[in-house]
Amino acid sequence: MSEMLQPNDIVGMSFWLMTLAMAGAAAFFLVERLWQAALTPLGVAMLVSALSYVNLAGVWAGTGDVPTVYRFADWQLTVPLLAVTFYLVLGAVTKVPVALFWRLLVASAVLTAAGYLGSAGFVSPTLGFLVALAGGLYILGEIYLGEAGRLNASSGNQKAQTAFNAMRLIATIGWAIYPLGYFMEYLGGGVDNEAINLIYNLADFLNKLAFGLIVWQVAANDREADGHRSPLSGA
Amino acid sequence: MSEMLQPNDIVGMSFWLMTLAMAGAAAFFLVERLWQAALTPLGVAMLVSALSYVNLAGVWAGTGDVPTVYRFADWQLTVPLLAVTFYLVLGAVTKVPVALFWRLLVASAVLTAAGYLGSAGFVSPTLGFLVALAGGLYILGEIYLGEAGRLNASSGNQKAQTAFNAMRLIATIGWAIYPLGYFMEYLGGGVDNEAINLIYNLADFLNKLAFGLIVWQVAANDREADGHRSPLSGA
Amino acid sequence: MSEMLQPNDIVGMSFWLMTLAMAGAAAFFLVERLWQAALTPLGVAMLVSALSYVNLAGVWAGTGDVPTVYRFADWQLTVPLLAVTFYLVLGAVTKVPVALFWRLLVASAVLTAAGYLGSAGFVSPTLGFLVALAGGLYILGEIYLGEAGRLNASSGNQKAQTAFNAMRLIATIGWAIYPLGYFMEYLGGGVDNEAINLIYNLADFLNKLAFGLIVWQVAANDREADGHRSPLSGA
Amino acid sequence: MSEMLQPNDIVGMSFWLMTLAMAGAAAFFLVERLWQAALTPLGVAMLVSALSYVNLAGVWAGTGDVPTVYRFADWQLTVPLLAVTFYLVLGAVTKVPVALFWRLLVASAVLTAAGYLGSAGFVSPTLGFLVALAGGLYILGEIYLGEAGRLNASSGNQKAQTAFNAMRLIATIGWAIYPLGYFMEYLGGGVDNEAINLIYNLADFLNKLAFGLIVWQVAANDREADGHRSPLSGA
Amino acid sequence: MSEMLQPNDIVGMSFWLMTLAMAGAAAFFLVERLWQAALTPLGVAMLVSALSYVNLAGVWAGTGDVPTVYRFADWQLTVPLLAVTFYLVLGAVTKVPVALFWRLLVASAVLTAAGYLGSAGFVSPTLGFLVALAGGLYILGEIYLGEAGRLNASSGNQKAQTAFNAMRLIATIGWAIYPLGYFMEYLGGGVDNEAINLIYNLADFLNKLAFGLIVWQVAANDREADGHRSPLSGA
Repeated sequence: MSEMLQPNDIVGMSFWLMTLAMAGAAAFFLVERLWQAALTPLGVAMLVSALSYVNLAGVWAGTGDVPTVYRFADWQLTVPLLAVTFYLVLGAVTKVPVALFWRLLVASAVLTAAGYLGSAGFVSPTLGFLVALAGGLYILGEIYLGEAGRLNASSGNQKAQTAFNAMRLIATIGWAIYPLGYFMEYLGGGVDNEAINLIYNLADFLNKLAFGLIVWQVAANDREADGHRSPLSGA
Repeated sequence: MSEMLQPNDIVGMSFWLMTLAMAGAAAFFLVERLWQAALTPLGVAMLVSALSYVNLAGVWAGTGDVPTVYRFADWQLTVPLLAVTFYLVLGAVTKVPVALFWRLLVASAVLTAAGYLGSAGFVSPTLGFLVALAGGLYILGEIYLGEAGRLNASSGNQKAQTAFNAMRLIATIGWAIYPLGYFMEYLGGGVDNEAINLIYNLADFLNKLAFGLIVWQVAANDREADGHRSPLSGA
Repeated sequence: MSEMLQPNDIVGMSFWLMTLAMAGAAAFFLVERLWQAALTPLGVAMLVSALSYVNLAGVWAGTGDVPTVYRFADWQLTVPLLAVTFYLVLGAVTKVPVALFWRLLVASAVLTAAGYLGSAGFVSPTLGFLVALAGGLYILGEIYLGEAGRLNASSGNQKAQTAFNAMRLIATIGWAIYPLGYFMEYLGGGVDNEAINLIYNLADFLNKLAFGLIVWQVAANDREADGHRSPLSGA
Repeated sequence: MSEMLQPNDIVGMSFWLMTLAMAGAAAFFLVERLWQAALTPLGVAMLVSALSYVNLAGVWAGTGDVPTVYRFADWQLTVPLLAVTFYLVLGAVTKVPVALFWRLLVASAVLTAAGYLGSAGFVSPTLGFLVALAGGLYILGEIYLGEAGRLNASSGNQKAQTAFNAMRLIATIGWAIYPLGYFMEYLGGGVDNEAINLIYNLADFLNKLAFGLIVWQVAANDREADGHRSPLSGA
Repeated sequence: MSEMLQPNDIVGMSFWLMTLAMAGAAAFFLVERLWQAALTPLGVAMLVSALSYVNLAGVWAGTGDVPTVYRFADWQLTVPLLAVTFYLVLGAVTKVPVALFWRLLVASAVLTAAGYLGSAGFVSPTLGFLVALAGGLYILGEIYLGEAGRLNASSGNQKAQTAFNAMRLIATIGWAIYPLGYFMEYLGGGVDNEAINLIYNLADFLNKLAFGLIVWQVAANDREADGHRSPLSGA
């Protein structure tokens, strides 16, 4: 994509920024993971996303557009990885049944698969939208009102609860961008391809990077509480 | 392959999905391996598969077809790696003779070599099919009725037995897709190249990723039983 | 870029030098990080910068110019990573409130975002300049006169104080190159594209590599003080 | 090489297989090395070989031929690495003079250098052949009758002796393929380029991978004897 | 470069050999570094050099020449890294003032910068030669007669002294190739581009790889003296 971007092509710049950010985040979470197992899914998600953005940035530079269906190979893998992180964060402070892991994994996989099938036209866009919405609402129900929410409320670990609350706030607000975009693009009057791509890039930035940093911070706190010393003098 | 896929090219999307999934899985199992030696063959298998899918995705985008023979370089290496994982999982809970390792390795190598020679036309497709089938049935016999099966039954480790049972269920059902595809493509009336590639991609996804996650889970359980703490506070 | 550089193209050579230097530095800080957590952001910053310079070097070789806006995807990520290093170095020797981390992160992110928006023409260049300048002055105020400066003065750790002073000297002098370049390029009479790129490359070299080596040295001292032996006999 | 191979191009397939195998083996031995220092030279050899095969596979796909001289950059580095592995395996079970390391290193470097100079026509093919043959016979003499052989015989470690015997059997039979190929290609009546490349690929597969797996197995045994637990529960 | 090399293009082969050797050496020293901190600069130097040789090999294959100025981006980074290794080896056996680190770093950076400016024509070739020569002679003086030499002589560690002597012998003889080549190319009657590139490749091979292996050996001895067991049974 080197020579094609115009200086004022802010969408192309955001693709390039995301590529760099995801590559850096992949290195960060995989390295930090050496001390916190819960960071592995985040590191893997960032790596998958970095590879995907290399592709997306190339498609944008070559054609000036990135059809949203291209993003689903990334989302199909990264959304479940982010969803199961709720399970791992809970598991750090209280005893969590493994069934919660599978419910979050399946609901998020159904969510993205339905979105893909609808936006690629293999099922009716409305059907895809409704099934994906159901998956998303199920996850929100689980983390606010369901077992995940109850476990968090009863864990008694103040810092982990604060982090869990921040994570589900991002999941509520940040993840809402995707169904809004889907609705406008496939069910509403269509969208400007510059605007939709910029919005999805920034949504990915928020939902992956900010979400990941919160998890990392609770992990770092937890590690410190175990008696590790300052960040300069090592693990 | 960036600019060539159509939004509704679900096969191309599945090739791209597999490339991302295998790259992420390679990172996952190689990183997790730091604590469980049994995950190394899985990490290596995912890495080999990721490199292979980069190639397959490029061939598909360039030509709209991927002859099945192209997949054998991957399978020749990854099927034996998956087969010997039965040996490693057993070895985690009971004493296993090293001869079982070699029987699984040789049978799976013969299986894929025969399949390749038959599908590339170096031997008669029927001969290749029969030899490969024999190799596959031998492995199934080994893990159900043979020494591997008996060792599992007598190990007394409930969780490892459950995992072993899940692994051989995948090996029975998931691996059956390959001989069925071979039969239809080379001995039956031929197949639609879109359908066969989509099926093989999903079979690889199931047989590699789901199989790998089961092994990882038994390893994680085993680690926890050794007294390691929560996933957030490290290894 | 292999065959295009002329023997006396010192700017092209400096792009190539930066690519090699950042790749080497990424490996260095990520490997050294195994013993000092504070080096992770530096390793990630060098990795991001190495990937960015691969792109910049290619644009230069292909077109003989690199518009400054291209550098902002790098700076948007690396400047905040360098800024929070002040927090980490302080955190190694004294107790530091996490709010300082966020103030440094936000100020540096605003700084680079304003610079980008101004230089790409999305806001008036003068407005972008002034907001970025305010962000930069806020950081300097923080590390000289604000809480960061006071914490450093009161830490009582001689070596860390010396390092902190060297770090803020680089941040004062080295980081001043960027607003000067911006002023000349977008608010003054314009600049020679060879000169400005050579200057930015050398500024990056100084501000990233020299800054990083100082942090690494204080970390190495700190580690040694913990009783680790000679560099030849291991960690 | 993606789109050029014909389904029945078994030589091209073997190049692609070797590329995948060597990449996977490099990851395997470098990861396993974390516990056994003797595996480092094997990991490095596999990595060098993987990079070399990427090149060879490209040359084959592009031109339908790979002149044997292309393989010498690989062999010049990997043969000495494999030769010194004899020294490392002995060093694991008994005290070995460092001079043996240097004799094996020099003899194997002379072997491959002479082969290269002869096959590229810088010296007479006959002279190159004879010098290389002398180097190879010296190594065989060393590991059967010389100090290396005597040290092995007297080590008293049953398993290491079995491995050493297997390693020298591979070195005797597997390495004999190279001088035979050289003799036929440069001193005999010439060879079919398909046949010779297929043979060299399979020889590399045997001599690198099978050789490496034997060394890994003795290392794994040795580790277990030190009291490490099952492969599932970690290092 | 895949398809362009002739079988008897020994210079092209040496570029390819160096690319493989440096990639392998980078992996080797970075992996070994896990146990010996002094190997990090060597690992970084090999990585930088490997990336540089990928570029040089491509330039050679594309144009049949590699102007010597291309090598300076590599040398500017790797020569200082090799020079400070003297400091690290001394630091392993005796107490060394950090000022020695900086003297070696600055002298070697001046050496290569002067060489670059002279050979690219930014200053007179004679001036560049004389300044570079002064830098080189200063380093030799330091390691033979200066503080570095005296510290070595008084360290009382036999093995480290032997290694230090071997290292400075390489620095005396091997590094002399560069000023000789510079003199012939820019101050004498010019040189054959095949000869000069072959000589520089072999000089790099000797000065980086042989030098690195000596350092690694002293580090391995030192580790063993600390009570680590055989190379087969781990770190």
